[in-house]
Amino acid sequence: MAAEIPNATVKRLSYYLRSLRRLKDAGVSVVSSEELVSPLNISSAQFRKDLSYFGAFGRKGVGYRVDALIGEIGKILGTDSAWKVAVVGTGRLGSAFISYPGFSKFNFIIAAAFDNDPSKTEKFRGSVKIENIARMKEVIGRKKIKLALLCVPQHAAQKTAIALVNCGIRAILNFSPVHLLLPEDITVADVDVAGELERLVYTLKTSGR
Amino acid sequence: MAAEIPNATVKRLSYYLRSLRRLKDAGVSVVSSEELVSPLNISSAQFRKDLSYFGAFGRKGVGYRVDALIGEIGKILGTDSAWKVAVVGTGRLGSAFISYPGFSKFNFIIAAAFDNDPSKTEKFRGSVKIENIARMKEVIGRKKIKLALLCVPQHAAQKTAIALVNCGIRAILNFSPVHLLLPEDITVADVDVAGELERLVYTLKTSGR
Repeated sequence: MAAEIPNATVKRLSYYLRSLRRLKDAGVSVVSSEELVSPLNISSAQFRKDLSYFGAFGRKGVGYRVDALIGEIGKILGTDSAWKVAVVGTGRLGSAFISYPGFSKFNFIIAAAFDNDPSKTEKFRGSVKIENIARMKEVIGRKKIKLALLCVPQHAAQKTAIALVNCGIRAILNFSPVHLLLPEDITVADVDVAGELERLVYTLKTSGR
Repeated sequence: MAAEIPNATVKRLSYYLRSLRRLKDAGVSVVSSEELVSPLNISSAQFRKDLSYFGAFGRKGVGYRVDALIGEIGKILGTDSAWKVAVVGTGRLGSAFISYPGFSKFNFIIAAAFDNDPSKTEKFRGSVKIENIARMKEVIGRKKIKLALLCVPQHAAQKTAIALVNCGIRAILNFSPVHLLLPEDITVADVDVAGELERLVYTLKTSGR
């Protein structure tokens, strides 16, 4: 069944989850579908359709219990239990992730961080120790980390990604402007802010806007 | 002609550009296509095909002049001249962009920043003054800014995006987990790091990896 769920639905589930967490923080315990989705520009019909992939929650006319729906969507996405994450490369971006307290809200825990620069390693950043990249296999194996944020420079990205896979990493969020070549069973998502900006400029330019 | 260029080519052009800048910083003045693209896991054939959309540069057996190719690709993308960018929302993420010195490498200049929190406005962060959001129209209009980084909280994203469009903004890089509804001639790209992580977890979970 899981394989039939469209990517767009998974993306919206993650939007709903954030909206629900915000409502919870604001002390709201029950919400109508309309209240929940209208700030997201998603229709109530779409919302109900998205939830229907997983069975129905809430009751018509009564609304949705915020806590229960957070739990249900978390269960669907797999983020109802905590996920350990390794940060590789502790330059400006990697450091920002290590210091970012918000990840824990999403049930992500920065469980390890690595760098190849000896001036950065063997030091703590908050509660996270920066380890030498040579210790990746041992640390990632011991902590059973499956998820990595790849924040190394472009020229080091491919070989570092391969090393991560050899350490047991199964999914990589890649911040380097490189098309990673990895075994098919490894999941990769790319985030490239400067590249997105360049593509926006390209669109502006070619459309004469 | 411009409309026929595939998105994937535009994305790779942005990768080539970064690779070329790195080579330039390393003092390299001429590069073979193989040296340029192999760290990116792109074939030389693909590279030549991508460049062929815009006419041929470089000569077989001689290689590519790094400076000239940076100029040509910049001209294609439209980033050969500087682009002013407005940052809206100066929380953790917006502040990071304002302080990030790397944007200037890409010819992006943070020309204005806005927040609705009076405790943050009327202060300088580096050379950028944080203005009250009420002054958006005047400042964006006067500085002729077309590009914005939307870094406001989820619940404020849609109304802020509409306000930006009314100020003359034509392209938005959206960091809020919201599907923005904007006029068709406005270009939007979404960046959602926590959402990407959630989708990676979902894939890991459903594939039993």
